[in-house]
Amino acid sequence: MEAVRLIQVKEDIHADNRAVAEALRRRLAKQKTFLLNLMSAPGAGKTSTILRTIEALQGSLRCGVIEADIDSTVDAERVAARGISAIQLNTGGFCHLDASMVSKGLDGLDLGTLDVVIIENVGNLVCPAEFDTGAVRNAMILSVPEGDDKPLKYPLMFTVSDVLLVNKIDYLALSDFDMDAVKERVRRLNPNIQIFEMSAKTGQGINEWAAWLQREATRFIGRAAERV
Amino acid sequence: MEAVRLIQVKEDIHADNRAVAEALRRRLAKQKTFLLNLMSAPGAGKTSTILRTIEALQGSLRCGVIEADIDSTVDAERVAARGISAIQLNTGGFCHLDASMVSKGLDGLDLGTLDVVIIENVGNLVCPAEFDTGAVRNAMILSVPEGDDKPLKYPLMFTVSDVLLVNKIDYLALSDFDMDAVKERVRRLNPNIQIFEMSAKTGQGINEWAAWLQREATRFIGRAAERV
Repeated sequence: MEAVRLIQVKEDIHADNRAVAEALRRRLAKQKTFLLNLMSAPGAGKTSTILRTIEALQGSLRCGVIEADIDSTVDAERVAARGISAIQLNTGGFCHLDASMVSKGLDGLDLGTLDVVIIENVGNLVCPAEFDTGAVRNAMILSVPEGDDKPLKYPLMFTVSDVLLVNKIDYLALSDFDMDAVKERVRRLNPNIQIFEMSAKTGQGINEWAAWLQREATRFIGRAAERV
Repeated sequence: MEAVRLIQVKEDIHADNRAVAEALRRRLAKQKTFLLNLMSAPGAGKTSTILRTIEALQGSLRCGVIEADIDSTVDAERVAARGISAIQLNTGGFCHLDASMVSKGLDGLDLGTLDVVIIENVGNLVCPAEFDTGAVRNAMILSVPEGDDKPLKYPLMFTVSDVLLVNKIDYLALSDFDMDAVKERVRRLNPNIQIFEMSAKTGQGINEWAAWLQREATRFIGRAAERV
């Protein structure tokens, strides 16, 4: 076995985004709108999961979506085709959303008519984890075909997420994905994380996750109402 | 159907990396070392593909690997365990490699003993596409479970790549992935791209791709030798 040499090329790339995010959360409390930030690698199933989730919440919470993409409107069109309020943010090369971009996105939605807004962040396990979007809760998707080593390689993403959705469990039979190992690795990084196994394709597990989201949103909106 | 509103938050984030990349290619020609930059989303199978490729080239070309990760050494350890020269670059939050980082990585390898160096770029379909690493050729992996819409959403990655490896074709039976649609979408962006269907798990398709890589590397090394 060859020895591994390690070179650090670390540099600080963060601007001060925190104050904008905090101001955004105060605005959301005033508006009584719950903001969820959904992150994942490309192709993990964010759009499909959002569509299933909004379907599950129908009749109890009114949902809108902020779609972030480098330069397409594919996802927003897919969401809008279902009659859901959607706004597309084009980041023009940026691999993440920050709080000021999200704030602009919210300006384009009629928040008075929405209880929940879901941000579909840029498909990326690195940059989005580093920027507070102003969301009330962070959720991430890890899909089975990506492999069970992802918590080892992208620890920050698993650390900043309140919820992990393990998607595409319909692929488990074909895969050597070790669900117990994933849960152990993730909980070592983040002992309080909620983990739901699901398939946006078959719908399996969606109700459990949607129930959690509904509880969190209802609690936030209730507290916001008390403050008024 | 709701109308989609579009907000541009475009900004130029590029530094001038091109000169460093060109200097690096001159250095590689002098050293008679072929540099391949391999890119993909997280979990598409870069490390497995590299191991299969080096195995296929064994006896004809001597290969080394530069692994790029945010802050782990998981992949370099996996490669080094096979007796392959590997160096780990930790980008410390950066979501891509640029030419100066790669140059530092090459400093850590004994280029006199290597015909081919493969860079495993950060798992990301956005940032790595924007930075010339100094490599002679760019290859990318799209894995079947990521979905056939990726060329629509990450067009730059498909545009800058000389080769597309469609990995995890062993998942095709379970998936609605439309291979013909992918090829058409990719060739519309990049008519000269080489496309290979493969599975790093089963080994299917590896030899065709490795034969292409061997031809390209041998040609580069031959030309470099003529210039000396």
